[in-house]
Amino acid sequence: DELTLDHHRQARTGLAEAVYGPGKSPEQCAAAVAGLLAGDGEGPVILTRADDDQVKAALAAAPGAQTTPTGPGLQTLVWRAAPPREGAVPVLTAGTGDLPVAREAAAVLAGYGLDSPVVADVGVAGLHRVLAHRETLETADVVVVVAGMEGALASVAAGLTSAPVVAVPTSTGYGASFEGVTALLAMLSSCSPGVSVVGIDNGFGAACAAVRILGARQGAA
Amino acid sequence: DELTLDHHRQARTGLAEAVYGPGKSPEQCAAAVAGLLAGDGEGPVILTRADDDQVKAALAAAPGAQTTPTGPGLQTLVWRAAPPREGAVPVLTAGTGDLPVAREAAAVLAGYGLDSPVVADVGVAGLHRVLAHRETLETADVVVVVAGMEGALASVAAGLTSAPVVAVPTSTGYGASFEGVTALLAMLSSCSPGVSVVGIDNGFGAACAAVRILGARQGAA
Amino acid sequence: DELTLDHHRQARTGLAEAVYGPGKSPEQCAAAVAGLLAGDGEGPVILTRADDDQVKAALAAAPGAQTTPTGPGLQTLVWRAAPPREGAVPVLTAGTGDLPVAREAAAVLAGYGLDSPVVADVGVAGLHRVLAHRETLETADVVVVVAGMEGALASVAAGLTSAPVVAVPTSTGYGASFEGVTALLAMLSSCSPGVSVVGIDNGFGAACAAVRILGARQGAA
Amino acid sequence: DELTLDHHRQARTGLAEAVYGPGKSPEQCAAAVAGLLAGDGEGPVILTRADDDQVKAALAAAPGAQTTPTGPGLQTLVWRAAPPREGAVPVLTAGTGDLPVAREAAAVLAGYGLDSPVVADVGVAGLHRVLAHRETLETADVVVVVAGMEGALASVAAGLTSAPVVAVPTSTGYGASFEGVTALLAMLSSCSPGVSVVGIDNGFGAACAAVRILGARQGAA
Amino acid sequence: DELTLDHHRQARTGLAEAVYGPGKSPEQCAAAVAGLLAGDGEGPVILTRADDDQVKAALAAAPGAQTTPTGPGLQTLVWRAAPPREGAVPVLTAGTGDLPVAREAAAVLAGYGLDSPVVADVGVAGLHRVLAHRETLETADVVVVVAGMEGALASVAAGLTSAPVVAVPTSTGYGASFEGVTALLAMLSSCSPGVSVVGIDNGFGAACAAVRILGARQGAA
Amino acid sequence: DELTLDHHRQARTGLAEAVYGPGKSPEQCAAAVAGLLAGDGEGPVILTRADDDQVKAALAAAPGAQTTPTGPGLQTLVWRAAPPREGAVPVLTAGTGDLPVAREAAAVLAGYGLDSPVVADVGVAGLHRVLAHRETLETADVVVVVAGMEGALASVAAGLTSAPVVAVPTSTGYGASFEGVTALLAMLSSCSPGVSVVGIDNGFGAACAAVRILGARQGAA
Amino acid sequence: DELTLDHHRQARTGLAEAVYGPGKSPEQCAAAVAGLLAGDGEGPVILTRADDDQVKAALAAAPGAQTTPTGPGLQTLVWRAAPPREGAVPVLTAGTGDLPVAREAAAVLAGYGLDSPVVADVGVAGLHRVLAHRETLETADVVVVVAGMEGALASVAAGLTSAPVVAVPTSTGYGASFEGVTALLAMLSSCSPGVSVVGIDNGFGAACAAVRILGARQGAA
Amino acid sequence: DELTLDHHRQARTGLAEAVYGPGKSPEQCAAAVAGLLAGDGEGPVILTRADDDQVKAALAAAPGAQTTPTGPGLQTLVWRAAPPREGAVPVLTAGTGDLPVAREAAAVLAGYGLDSPVVADVGVAGLHRVLAHRETLETADVVVVVAGMEGALASVAAGLTSAPVVAVPTSTGYGASFEGVTALLAMLSSCSPGVSVVGIDNGFGAACAAVRILGARQGAA
Ligand SMILES: Nc1ncnc2c1ncn2[C@@H]1O[C@H](COP(=O)(O)O)[C@@H](O)[C@H]1O
Ligand SMILES: Nc1ncnc2c1ncn2[C@@H]1O[C@H](COP(=O)(O)O)[C@@H](O)[C@H]1O
Ligand SMILES: Nc1ncnc2c1ncn2[C@@H]1O[C@H](COP(=O)(O)O)[C@@H](O)[C@H]1O
Ligand SMILES: Nc1ncnc2c1ncn2[C@@H]1O[C@H](COP(=O)(O)O)[C@@H](O)[C@H]1O
Ligand SMILES: [Mg+2]
Ligand SMILES: [Mg+2]
Ligand SMILES: [Mg+2]
Ligand SMILES: [Mg+2]
Ligand SMILES: [Mg+2]
Ligand SMILES: [Mg+2]
Ligand SMILES: [Mg+2]
Ligand SMILES: [Mg+2]
Repeated sequence: DELTLDHHRQARTGLAEAVYGPGKSPEQCAAAVAGLLAGDGEGPVILTRADDDQVKAALAAAPGAQTTPTGPGLQTLVWRAAPPREGAVPVLTAGTGDLPVAREAAAVLAGYGLDSPVVADVGVAGLHRVLAHRETLETADVVVVVAGMEGALASVAAGLTSAPVVAVPTSTGYGASFEGVTALLAMLSSCSPGVSVVGIDNGFGAACAAVRILGARQGAA
Repeated sequence: DELTLDHHRQARTGLAEAVYGPGKSPEQCAAAVAGLLAGDGEGPVILTRADDDQVKAALAAAPGAQTTPTGPGLQTLVWRAAPPREGAVPVLTAGTGDLPVAREAAAVLAGYGLDSPVVADVGVAGLHRVLAHRETLETADVVVVVAGMEGALASVAAGLTSAPVVAVPTSTGYGASFEGVTALLAMLSSCSPGVSVVGIDNGFGAACAAVRILGARQGAA
Repeated sequence: DELTLDHHRQARTGLAEAVYGPGKSPEQCAAAVAGLLAGDGEGPVILTRADDDQVKAALAAAPGAQTTPTGPGLQTLVWRAAPPREGAVPVLTAGTGDLPVAREAAAVLAGYGLDSPVVADVGVAGLHRVLAHRETLETADVVVVVAGMEGALASVAAGLTSAPVVAVPTSTGYGASFEGVTALLAMLSSCSPGVSVVGIDNGFGAACAAVRILGARQGAA
Repeated sequence: DELTLDHHRQARTGLAEAVYGPGKSPEQCAAAVAGLLAGDGEGPVILTRADDDQVKAALAAAPGAQTTPTGPGLQTLVWRAAPPREGAVPVLTAGTGDLPVAREAAAVLAGYGLDSPVVADVGVAGLHRVLAHRETLETADVVVVVAGMEGALASVAAGLTSAPVVAVPTSTGYGASFEGVTALLAMLSSCSPGVSVVGIDNGFGAACAAVRILGARQGAA
Repeated sequence: DELTLDHHRQARTGLAEAVYGPGKSPEQCAAAVAGLLAGDGEGPVILTRADDDQVKAALAAAPGAQTTPTGPGLQTLVWRAAPPREGAVPVLTAGTGDLPVAREAAAVLAGYGLDSPVVADVGVAGLHRVLAHRETLETADVVVVVAGMEGALASVAAGLTSAPVVAVPTSTGYGASFEGVTALLAMLSSCSPGVSVVGIDNGFGAACAAVRILGARQGAA
Repeated sequence: DELTLDHHRQARTGLAEAVYGPGKSPEQCAAAVAGLLAGDGEGPVILTRADDDQVKAALAAAPGAQTTPTGPGLQTLVWRAAPPREGAVPVLTAGTGDLPVAREAAAVLAGYGLDSPVVADVGVAGLHRVLAHRETLETADVVVVVAGMEGALASVAAGLTSAPVVAVPTSTGYGASFEGVTALLAMLSSCSPGVSVVGIDNGFGAACAAVRILGARQGAA
Repeated sequence: DELTLDHHRQARTGLAEAVYGPGKSPEQCAAAVAGLLAGDGEGPVILTRADDDQVKAALAAAPGAQTTPTGPGLQTLVWRAAPPREGAVPVLTAGTGDLPVAREAAAVLAGYGLDSPVVADVGVAGLHRVLAHRETLETADVVVVVAGMEGALASVAAGLTSAPVVAVPTSTGYGASFEGVTALLAMLSSCSPGVSVVGIDNGFGAACAAVRILGARQGAA
Repeated sequence: DELTLDHHRQARTGLAEAVYGPGKSPEQCAAAVAGLLAGDGEGPVILTRADDDQVKAALAAAPGAQTTPTGPGLQTLVWRAAPPREGAVPVLTAGTGDLPVAREAAAVLAGYGLDSPVVADVGVAGLHRVLAHRETLETADVVVVVAGMEGALASVAAGLTSAPVVAVPTSTGYGASFEGVTALLAMLSSCSPGVSVVGIDNGFGAACAAVRILGARQGAA
């Protein structure tokens, strides 16, 4: 068979298996979504970076998803979202161009019951912009920072909060940003200790890291 | 002046300023440590990757540090460690060669009151080794995974726990591990969602990320 | 002339010359296939990664090939397949997106008389999936592992079998998988000794390596 | 504890755990060797790339190893070598500078009972040199090709044999060989199908791949 | 003005200024060609890698060029070709996919009066193919070797001739050939001394190097 | 002869030829310094990154230089410094480890008559540190920013001043800073427009750029 | 909100916020332009690299921009340009293919009141071309050099002027120019001291650096 | 045996086998040199980059070599040099630090009977320096250009001569020259057509290319 679904991943890791669209046929997307919904696993079912044909096929097989545009011609779909829960996970972006990645993170967080504000376009070229959100940073449980180009916002934000900072480099940029590699390396080299990093444009992964962090926290509370 | 100390970083970020040895003279190390201890800041004072001359100078200026060997000819020193606190942060290594980095992480965690077990040499070539520590993984608050070569232990561990996994690639390895770059890229590309990554050999950074996560958790509890 | 066919490659190396589609005109593809079939060489004639025009031209010149879809808009064609022979060469994939490469390997193996099972979507994020195929691994003659992202499945599989493991990195992935480079490096750095590696997405090459291995074996039996 | 030995790796994978010297203290080397010899596992115990202090400590703990120089100031040690067995695994080198890596391969093969000839300095700049060994290639069970610089010997050898070719790029070379990266990439891109590749300077890994191949073969015979 | 033509480049360097199509508008191409033809310079006027619109515009402005297809949708045009001259410059290719680059070289050589044979598809996987052209190599004045993948043909050819070998890496290939980078590095690292290399797919540049070499020779004769 | 001095570079470019120590013998250093002082050129004579033997030889040949330590075992020497002139060129560093590069810049600026303050250790992890120097930034004629790791200080500083910002990436850092490459790329990708960048650790080059800028300015005043 | 405009950037840095087209929707472009024009900030409003839809939306929201073609299908728009001012900023290009980047620089300079000549196609293969513009170089206030391929024009120009040289590598080129990386590295490694560099194809950034330099100068005059 | 000498390489390729010191033991160097001298081959015997121990061993086995210092602690030795012959092969260097590589080229050229002038330190930062040698360039048979940093001298020289230009990038430089990679890429991307390139610091290879070119020429004369 083409799919080996991991129905108990939610039980094992707190995060249900998600379906990554690119490279799958519309039929494979639909089968994976339907299989996960029908199985004895639990947790949200999420389809990411789906193009129009994949969305159509998946919704035909399993109507009722919440859809979010998360890139040119791409959407993220969520079925069986978790009920709302506590937890402040602001998602900051350095520029307007980072919004699709931030939205992917927010959509996944929503799937896990977290209603997260996106604070857009507060890059360090105008420091007052991020300083205006100081309280958001200070009261956050986790901060997700989404930035391309030189990725400096992660370092600056981490200097203003005691919350864990999960940095997402994006492929936004020009000149020498090399499709996100520069931001990736810069975030990994942050002079602000305790920044941890996920892959380029991986808003999904950052949200998952945040869910793990908050889950740990709730278990402990 | 050669130093601009950041005395209130602990208050602002939950992590006191630490002193990174390499590239500093013994005098600069000693001055930084003494300055941080004497200032009105709080929290542990940590000197990392100090060579023998730096250790000597720092201890002359400020006796009484806890010292841990964390590399060939290098030590990590901790003054004014925080009182013991709750929190299970196991530090796993794939091989014996990853131990110095794991010890740096453990020493920094100890500075923040966390007594963390190092689970050494449980790389995926013999899966039973990590599976033997399944309970440790399941009951952890944060898991730090330290691995070189292909870094696969991070992916495997993250599939066995719901705790946040902070992955530290190491420069251990041969063949095509390129001083840790391969492990770094592999960890960033983990097929287990929610792994976040710090820089190569950056045991310090992983510990800081764990402290941020647990701090968040305590505030919330 | 535009083609210098190597009619006796099968006699010399156990592997007949194959025709790699990309970069060739439909006419060149057809001429190469027809030339190899008409020459005094033996062994299967294989055309890989052919697009629709190339397939059409080749089939017009030489009808009767077995066709397998092995990528978006691409097919692998086999004429004059060898008779069925003994040999267990399971082809494992980490994810669904690795299937086209696995299918290229299986199609070429079929050309050499080997009916190989594709075990799909058993990546290490859910270890139980590959462990469920332990017997397949233990009784294999050669194991082909096809994986993108961090490529960890090769290391895990090689720890569970004494068969030679031929690893194929794929360009599947996101974040920091860099079109297969990360999986390539990870597989080359495997902590499980005795993994050998072919180029990115090179299912053809992995099948050829398996044929060489099995050929050696038969000669010896 | 600092070591988690994998005593049953020989039973599981046909290859006993080996001890990689670099990054281990002499005490760790000695403990690993002694532990593996004392455990209930079987198969050869091999210590690779050990420096003088490591060799001394290991021999003090466990006398009687067979030693081979395999690099400047480095040796490979083998205890409890397997009895001689059938199998022709010639190890070709392109240049004299590739000899240490070839010797590592030969020493490991010897540990598994295979007495392998090293055919040195037959690089493609003078084709007659490798052509003079045509019969060795044609009658081989596995061919190991060790080459730096542009690594072309692997492609040429694979065009002259039906045996599996395991290619080892070496860090030998100048100009643009980039410590073996050029040879690695060239071998992975070989136009001779069925070449598989291990990491740079990884004579150990090539020998392990050959042992897997031959083991498979014996089981099958 | 948008163009600063270098009318006396032929007199100064033996090579007239050529017009590189990509990145220029059809009008710019036409103006450059017409300008060079009308100026007081001499030598052939060559337009390379021109797409259909550029070809059309250039031919409208200056009819009568010799055209050669040198890539998908691209052509090389030559006006005012030099009269035929002595000089044997065979252009070898490793595979069929290298032909467009070889044809660019041959077209430019023809512009300088050299009628050069293209010897196609003689890669090292079947050594007898290049060995069949031994006499061509031995009697050549300059040998141009065009190869992608691992680029080994340059090393092998240079071992069979005393003529200067100009190697052109091509972007042909798969697996780990990285758009020609592997062939480029391999050719630069050739174990056959006296190979010199031009940029990837730069058939134009190789022809220019050959013209310089032959010009030197004639001056001396 | 081994040296071809460029005596009139000061007249031509406003910057006299300087002598770069590494790779030169002590005798070559001494001869170059003496030759420049004796020639009919003008402007300061500067020897950079000289080791102890080079310093000794140069001072023996030409006593009376002003010496500055600018790296481990390295010094910058200035003879015939220009008279003091107007111009505010603060040199900021992100960390203490960036000081040697900052000192190289300051020593060269001093050679051109500019007495430049070094503002050390004001990296963005504690933003208040650089904000405390806001006035220095606002009144500067040129700002030189010296930073390793993620190099974010350049972006932040450029957002606080209208002066030209010349950024110098340094090889300071760990984790993923890759000997300055990360800082280099980050500075080139700065989201603050108008930052220009020199090579890694190139304090000399940044000072030269500042001298060109100020020279231009004086001419204009 | 999706935009956080930085209205006082002109007051703070001498450069108003500009809107970078790629990655923004036409609506976002229009909103940003309109917002900047309507706010209490001052200085030119510039939209760069806008495609046809973005241009249309922006002009609908805010008519009257000056438009310049600066790439295939891309334009740069300027509203509220500054009044003409003094300052000689010639923009040199090495080839015809570098013109779009040069035009972006010139359009931005025009937005700040500087009417800058573009000196096109004066690459170093024909040195007389740049030498013919020697006086332009000698009387310049700032020189912008735009070059792809090996980027040598920056070094040559900087040897002929005392003005600051801002180098812009372009993605123009073939062979081994790697989309501008080669020119970028070459310019950063220039043997002519005092060259500073901006990102690949970043004509905007070079113009901004020039504006900062001239602003400094005027303030001082 | 450890050596497979290629006695007839001179007859086959016009270039006798040479011995590359690094990675060989003193004994291996001595044996190779003695073997080549004693064999039935002809042509010069050359040992390159030999350290003191290798030199001593080689001279003990075969006295009477001509020695040239070609790097720190390294020498090139030539036995049985060819008689003087015609041919102008000037070796230009951009800087003083490129001299060892230029000397390696000159020593090898001398081995083939060519007495080649080294024109040192004529980099493009002061164009008059290379222009002063215009006649040397115009009358050369082959021009070897040795340069590090941005390697621009190759492009400039090739614009001033019709002779073939063989470019040797060197590892000289700082900032972003990356041990010669920048010069290598720049030379490969030269805008002056007909430059061909050898590996980094490969003065030997450039000399061999020149000998091939001149040999061709003599045969033709
Ligand atoms: N899908 C494939 N992947 C890798 N190599 C291939 C594939 N198909 C054919 N080849 C090899 O590519 C070479 C094609 O060379 P040519 O057809 O001469 O350009 C042949 O020697 C084949 O062995
Ligand atoms: N020379 C060698 N080259 C490559 N791999 C080796 C070599 N020697 C030992 N190994 C492998 O490296 C691993 C060492 O891991 P550890 O000893 O736990 O750090 C073992 O599993 C060995 O199989
Ligand atoms: N196909 C080609 N490959 C490499 N270089 C070329 C090619 N065609 C032309 N050139 C060179 O590229 C330069 C083009 O510069 P320009 O036309 O000013 O942009 C000319 O000097 C040509 O010598
Ligand atoms: N063509 C361009 N090249 C480089 N940077 C630009 C260009 N156009 C605008 N910018 C800068 O890029 C930033 C755009 O960020 P944002 O619009 O928030 O995504 C602004 O701060 C501009 O200063
Ligand atoms: Mg913005
Ligand atoms: Mg181990
Ligand atoms: Mg899956
Ligand atoms: Mg040899
Ligand atoms: Mg072929
Ligand atoms: Mg500091
Ligand atoms: Mg031009
Ligand atoms: Mg010089």
